[in-house]
Amino acid sequence: MDPREHYRDKRVMLTGGLGFIGSNLAHRLVEYGADVLIVDSLIPEYGGNLFNVEGIKGLVRVNIADVRDASGMRYLVRGQDYIFNLAGQVSHIDSMSDPFTDLEINCRSQLSLLEACRLNNPSVKIIYASTRQIYGAPDYLPVDEKHLLHPTDVNGINKMAGEWYHILYSNVHGIRATSLRLTNTYGPRLLMKHNRQGFIGWFIRLAIDAEEISLYGDGTQLRDMNYVDDVVEALILAGATDMVNGNVYNLGGPEPVSLLQIVETLMELCPQASYKLVPFPPEKKRIDIGDYYGDYSKIREALGWEPRVPLREGLSKTIEYYREHKAHYWE
Amino acid sequence: MDPREHYRDKRVMLTGGLGFIGSNLAHRLVEYGADVLIVDSLIPEYGGNLFNVEGIKGLVRVNIADVRDASGMRYLVRGQDYIFNLAGQVSHIDSMSDPFTDLEINCRSQLSLLEACRLNNPSVKIIYASTRQIYGAPDYLPVDEKHLLHPTDVNGINKMAGEWYHILYSNVHGIRATSLRLTNTYGPRLLMKHNRQGFIGWFIRLAIDAEEISLYGDGTQLRDMNYVDDVVEALILAGATDMVNGNVYNLGGPEPVSLLQIVETLMELCPQASYKLVPFPPEKKRIDIGDYYGDYSKIREALGWEPRVPLREGLSKTIEYYREHKAHYWE
Repeated sequence: MDPREHYRDKRVMLTGGLGFIGSNLAHRLVEYGADVLIVDSLIPEYGGNLFNVEGIKGLVRVNIADVRDASGMRYLVRGQDYIFNLAGQVSHIDSMSDPFTDLEINCRSQLSLLEACRLNNPSVKIIYASTRQIYGAPDYLPVDEKHLLHPTDVNGINKMAGEWYHILYSNVHGIRATSLRLTNTYGPRLLMKHNRQGFIGWFIRLAIDAEEISLYGDGTQLRDMNYVDDVVEALILAGATDMVNGNVYNLGGPEPVSLLQIVETLMELCPQASYKLVPFPPEKKRIDIGDYYGDYSKIREALGWEPRVPLREGLSKTIEYYREHKAHYWE
Repeated sequence: MDPREHYRDKRVMLTGGLGFIGSNLAHRLVEYGADVLIVDSLIPEYGGNLFNVEGIKGLVRVNIADVRDASGMRYLVRGQDYIFNLAGQVSHIDSMSDPFTDLEINCRSQLSLLEACRLNNPSVKIIYASTRQIYGAPDYLPVDEKHLLHPTDVNGINKMAGEWYHILYSNVHGIRATSLRLTNTYGPRLLMKHNRQGFIGWFIRLAIDAEEISLYGDGTQLRDMNYVDDVVEALILAGATDMVNGNVYNLGGPEPVSLLQIVETLMELCPQASYKLVPFPPEKKRIDIGDYYGDYSKIREALGWEPRVPLREGLSKTIEYYREHKAHYWE
């Protein structure tokens, strides 16, 4: 199956389409000849950024709307062949200080999008962006899809519910849907204006600005890192087959890396930057999950997907992108 | 530890306290000398029934309020030593036809109750009534707490989220909370006016009325049944120790029984009644979970709890109660 052919002239809606992953996916779908509708609310603190569609502006339709707007969604889903459902509140920290906003976006809006499809477009295919956050602190490594879900923050709980609404609507109502559990993703078009959406964007920003990175603990915590092009590839493949409907899949990085290794790679690419180890702040330690890396053999077997971009190459491309377009991301 | 002493003069709030399990618990807590505040919304289709507190009416305070009333809850939680959090939308069928009401009650209201405690009564202890429904169709039997959660209806997803808010607030915010995953519970004060809250009440009603029970499939599906006094005992024990905070526990029945065995026991107790096997309606089959019975060894080890009332004895007591008080339950 050539995904290039699969999406040609298809109507594809992307919720959160001006955000990091959504906009990278939009670029790919335009390349494949899809009829792309981007839906995004451009909430100031979130990842949506009009500059993210620079280069494809005339080739996509952009509809500013919030997934919490149930009535708007009921209209927008009509006639779509695919929905890549990427809109979400993604800050773990914000979910703890404002749990109700997280609930509205990550639970209620997911349910209302699915209800909209059930009533107005039951033949659509939905690809949902879930997160490894729902596993919480791993019981074992690498984490596969048989691992218990025991999320450690409100965001993880609500994303867990949002994912299961999709699986339920697929299994019970026949709305074809699948869920990919994304891990730490980085690359061009990532939000860089604050540090509440994960460490990687902020580390890259500090490195580019030749500042000092503060690494909590001893820096030996392991993570798996996905370059955004690999994640886009997984989404594209998952949309193109019905075999994945009603199932959940981990993504995963090329190999586990420590935060210290990530920082040291950044130091090599940005030699003016520096780092120091600092003790874990107690409020961060309480929701820290220790080491995490995922087992992605289930999606490899189902779709032939695997991560292809090594960390150093991915970080190098990312830094190159931001050096050129910094003005549009730093604010 | 004698629970009788533990609850004496303690301030205990019961959400859903006019419902089936809540009201049975209220009777026990009054016996133990607790200062009981019942909070219930008396939604007509739900299990709340003022007759359920017959006999203890002057000994408890009843405050009619809905857990969705965040402002009311913020006031009511103040000064409570314990909250038995039993309010919920419990119909799986209704959760599929009206998923948003289920979400408001089983997700949002749980989060707002916990936030109310965090802000106004952080030293309270909360005991949450979860459900084996969150496991979905078992991967293996008996189901223990290591079993994956893969709920098969909206109610199961929302109860899963509601449970995890409690665990999270216990682990992160120090609001002492535990969750008991209840299985099929029956006994006096169960809702009997419609058949959308599980089969057992409806079967008992038909048996008492000497009518014919329709059993789906071949009746060999296994369940575990808990008499309500055993569930009340588990709640009482869980409230009385801090060892359970941040943990989840299955309850479970004395032994797995088939639906056919349950019906045959009812036939022995109500010889005028009858039953027939009928094919599974497709819309029920789609959300049927096959056999289920739980492994309760975790709570047995932690609290010494085990189910004590055999099925026949429990059904006999239940039938006796309803024969006497039918007018208050049949409507």
